[in-house]
Amino acid sequence: MSKYHRPDAQTIQSLKDIANKLRIHSIEATNASNSGHPSSCCSAAEVMSVLFFNTMRYTIKEPRHPNNDRFVLSKGHAAPILYAAWAETGLFPTSELLELRKLTSDLEGHPTPRLNFVDVATGSLGQGLSCAAGMAYTGKYFDKSDYRVYCLIGDGESAEGSIWEALAFSSRYQLDNLVAIFDINRLGQSEATSLGHDVDIYKARVEAFGWNTYVVDGHDVEELCKVFWEARQVTGRPTCILAKTFKGQGIPGVADAENWHGKPLGDKAEEAIAAIRENIANSGSHNLIAQQPTLDLSPVNTHVELSAAPSYKLGESVATRLAYGTALVKLGKANNRVVAMDGDTKNSTFAQKFKDAFPDRFIECYIAEQNLVGVGIGCATRDRTIPFISTFAAFFTRAFDQIRMGAISQTNANFVGSHAGVSIGEDGPSQMALEDLAMFRTIPGSTVFYPTDAVSTERAVELAANTKGVCFIRTSRPNVPVIYKNDEPFAVGKAKVVRSSPSDQVTVIGSCVTLYEAIKAADTLAESGINIRIIDPFTIKPIDAETIIANVQETNGKIITVEDHYAEGGIGEAVAGAVSGQSGIIVKRLYVPEVPRSGKCEELMEKYGISASCIVKAVHSILSI
Amino acid sequence: MSKYHRPDAQTIQSLKDIANKLRIHSIEATNASNSGHPSSCCSAAEVMSVLFFNTMRYTIKEPRHPNNDRFVLSKGHAAPILYAAWAETGLFPTSELLELRKLTSDLEGHPTPRLNFVDVATGSLGQGLSCAAGMAYTGKYFDKSDYRVYCLIGDGESAEGSIWEALAFSSRYQLDNLVAIFDINRLGQSEATSLGHDVDIYKARVEAFGWNTYVVDGHDVEELCKVFWEARQVTGRPTCILAKTFKGQGIPGVADAENWHGKPLGDKAEEAIAAIRENIANSGSHNLIAQQPTLDLSPVNTHVELSAAPSYKLGESVATRLAYGTALVKLGKANNRVVAMDGDTKNSTFAQKFKDAFPDRFIECYIAEQNLVGVGIGCATRDRTIPFISTFAAFFTRAFDQIRMGAISQTNANFVGSHAGVSIGEDGPSQMALEDLAMFRTIPGSTVFYPTDAVSTERAVELAANTKGVCFIRTSRPNVPVIYKNDEPFAVGKAKVVRSSPSDQVTVIGSCVTLYEAIKAADTLAESGINIRIIDPFTIKPIDAETIIANVQETNGKIITVEDHYAEGGIGEAVAGAVSGQSGIIVKRLYVPEVPRSGKCEELMEKYGISASCIVKAVHSILSI
Repeated sequence: MSKYHRPDAQTIQSLKDIANKLRIHSIEATNASNSGHPSSCCSAAEVMSVLFFNTMRYTIKEPRHPNNDRFVLSKGHAAPILYAAWAETGLFPTSELLELRKLTSDLEGHPTPRLNFVDVATGSLGQGLSCAAGMAYTGKYFDKSDYRVYCLIGDGESAEGSIWEALAFSSRYQLDNLVAIFDINRLGQSEATSLGHDVDIYKARVEAFGWNTYVVDGHDVEELCKVFWEARQVTGRPTCILAKTFKGQGIPGVADAENWHGKPLGDKAEEAIAAIRENIANSGSHNLIAQQPTLDLSPVNTHVELSAAPSYKLGESVATRLAYGTALVKLGKANNRVVAMDGDTKNSTFAQKFKDAFPDRFIECYIAEQNLVGVGIGCATRDRTIPFISTFAAFFTRAFDQIRMGAISQTNANFVGSHAGVSIGEDGPSQMALEDLAMFRTIPGSTVFYPTDAVSTERAVELAANTKGVCFIRTSRPNVPVIYKNDEPFAVGKAKVVRSSPSDQVTVIGSCVTLYEAIKAADTLAESGINIRIIDPFTIKPIDAETIIANVQETNGKIITVEDHYAEGGIGEAVAGAVSGQSGIIVKRLYVPEVPRSGKCEELMEKYGISASCIVKAVHSILSI
Repeated sequence: MSKYHRPDAQTIQSLKDIANKLRIHSIEATNASNSGHPSSCCSAAEVMSVLFFNTMRYTIKEPRHPNNDRFVLSKGHAAPILYAAWAETGLFPTSELLELRKLTSDLEGHPTPRLNFVDVATGSLGQGLSCAAGMAYTGKYFDKSDYRVYCLIGDGESAEGSIWEALAFSSRYQLDNLVAIFDINRLGQSEATSLGHDVDIYKARVEAFGWNTYVVDGHDVEELCKVFWEARQVTGRPTCILAKTFKGQGIPGVADAENWHGKPLGDKAEEAIAAIRENIANSGSHNLIAQQPTLDLSPVNTHVELSAAPSYKLGESVATRLAYGTALVKLGKANNRVVAMDGDTKNSTFAQKFKDAFPDRFIECYIAEQNLVGVGIGCATRDRTIPFISTFAAFFTRAFDQIRMGAISQTNANFVGSHAGVSIGEDGPSQMALEDLAMFRTIPGSTVFYPTDAVSTERAVELAANTKGVCFIRTSRPNVPVIYKNDEPFAVGKAKVVRSSPSDQVTVIGSCVTLYEAIKAADTLAESGINIRIIDPFTIKPIDAETIIANVQETNGKIITVEDHYAEGGIGEAVAGAVSGQSGIIVKRLYVPEVPRSGKCEELMEKYGISASCIVKAVHSILSI
């Protein structure tokens, strides 16, 4: 074990001075924007000073260099002090800090990757540690590099269960390159936190979750320098620094006082700044420069193709969830940066196939979907991996907030949800995804795949891997026939016309289980001389409005949508929206209209109105209009 | 402290026998349905036997009597043993257990309140304890009754952060009427759990979270009887029983073996049942009857009206979030079963007003939205309270899974989300709800209010309190003018025509901030001789298709929707869906098209295309079609 060298007195004084300068910047910036959280910044001033000017190793000229230590500000409302720290490194002029929260500035109210020194957006609390854990996992096991990850967490947000999921995960995987700092400033937004300054309870909890912990005076730069050094010596366990601090520290009348959350100081700023200045020994520029990492990591190739084309027989019966596992293994063979993770459902989602093929690139995240998603987003940062995150599609609702924030984080993480809709059968409504299309469609810039058969599923997986932004692939439980040839080309936003004749009277749009019902309905209707056109949208977002409109114009302006999903936000509304600018088109929508029951797949599709016989009825009905 | 009386030998044997009978029922039922989780049932057999036939007090003839002890099966996939336990009490014939998972039976794959002995649906893991905590809080603080709440939790699901939120909450509020049982059977779905049988780690974690804990052999009925009795003696703290068990206990070759999750025994059933029968001393009927509670609680009056009508001046500037606080206090005055809870945002959502007026009926849930929602749903069970649950609307995405399950639970909980859309301004996208309408619209049977001014907000709050199912009220941050008279009547599904003339050329539909922009646009357009009709939908679900269609037929079939929300699943798609069955209507949709930035409210509404000037342009554009 190496020996700790206490920083010299001048360095200690400089770190103190920088902390106070960060306070002043935070006060000035929030006053300029007339909004923001200066008191939440002030409690973290010494932690930020020590991290950025003593502990962390990074190159300023390329803040996202893969070798740099990472910093995640989980308490995103303290953004001004993050911005101030980077300005003090020299990355940009401190004068820009006064542009805080202006429309013309990337210095937003909460950090986003519009800034080149931010990896993940924060501001919805309790999410940073999962992302940090994903980065640390990537560093230790995929990059096999010595970069370290630091995550600053507010005490208020430590009430979020996602924090505890991340704590359990990080000790389970021995992430000794991860350091969490709890800024225990006692005060939440509307009142004191549940635990106040009782640092012993925090310590007992975090230790029980398997972390190496230290309780420190969070305003003592010397103590902070030492524990961050000690953390680096620890192997096999992540480290948590429980920093006892005061909200608004340094500001007379504000420090440790209630009712100062999210309030600029206004008229009190001048006096506050004067008081803080008195503690600064050297108000000029300091000469502290961050330690440089060894810059030996190269960018990752994030393009990947299936190692082999789909290989099915037409009509062969294969569940799309199984085809997902098959495709993922093919991607894994083609690019060693394809990684996968799941929440103890891998034998159902078929992520198991990837684990079997590439055990070192699979992360079991157990039954903790928020952390599962956060870890995946963390793994995706700086384009170090191409992550595929799977669970039952219904359980992604558990992580909607994380996925929402993922879009703000500009993540390229891929989500694969199995067990869509009532077609899962007997397990019942709690396991049925009936709102997943709606959820993923709301994500800005997302791509939502709903492949119908095994061939299109394999192509969806390949396309998702290479498509920027959040991608979601909806897979289904039942075996379904292969309807596309192995060399059929697929593209984002391009629908397939599955059945067509010059005499088609209606266009029916369905995906996977409902597409097969549409085909059955078409056969039945053909017997009575009624032909229908059938479209497989392939992606529900973007929806192929052009193909749909062109076809519906050939079928008397009549569309029927049929989906194993609730009415709202799914295929029906996507189509209704897509054609809403056209006059003369009517859309009849079939969907699951209520909370379904347990039962057999076929029984449920019949009962909830999305079976072939229901489509036949709907066709007769729409033709009578 | 009373003295523990050990049950007599005959009782002990009967409890053992019942446990084994429950095993046999679980095996037979899952075999009959050819699906389900017998091994997950078997680990809990003794816990269930002791709870239902020794510990809990309830009247069988009215399983939902308010005085009964509550039982929540958080590990919902063990449903067959819950059903078996109730059948063994005599509530229904054991022969019905073989109807498990059939469409014609309420004995679904996971429990739902279609059964009169289930309060909350489970099956999405990790949610039961929050609901149980809400029931226990209600018992202790609102009902002030001695009923107790028992919650059986799987070890796999204890990885869910929501469990830890609930653990923290329950000790914070000293819920000594709450008992959690961890069924630590070591095995998850796809592999062993993270902690396996390391009960000491569980104990350290749960104790650090403030609970009284016991580690027991979960298959020892005598030990279980004793700890449940001891738990009842403890005051000021909830109790957790850490039951070390074996998955599939009692089944030769299955007990403690991997790869038996969610699998009926099939051919192995006969041998398994024979082996279990050997341990049953008395296979006839037992004479254990649950202890009866004192039946002294009456049903609650769940109807409530505002104690005073809205009282505003037309044109007065009031934020709808503030009107929420005002209305909630009025409801609280009218009915002492109105309760409220918030996640440390009460000074922003204005739930603070209710807390100030009725401190004993407000629950601070801190920054843990999943538990906040679960507690609210728990408080709503058996119609004991009328709960209002508030936070920033964006942060309800954190609890989408809980809200989804709330619908399956048939909850009447009311959700109020503030800080909708870009109109919040400088805080930036992480704090902006832009997918909340889509999310709440997907909930089956939900009612989604988006009131425009203070008067309509007060009425929305009153209507929500009296409307069955999940209700959501979207409130906004900025002050907006009052446009409705204080005596204006409002109803669910009834839109208001806000501006109308015989020469209107387009119908514009907006809510709150965008409705005011529409009014400004109308004034501008009127100057150039173009009149537009303006509709305030009031509820986005149900959307008032009748009023919209009637009006749009008077405005040349042309509609513009404008919303402070993303494109998907919001007002635009709701309207497009509502008119999709009509030919000759076109809908142009204005919405926030991408992840927005920080900035001033007005700047953002302009930049993202939902301001008055954007509406003016859209009107010109649609008129040119």
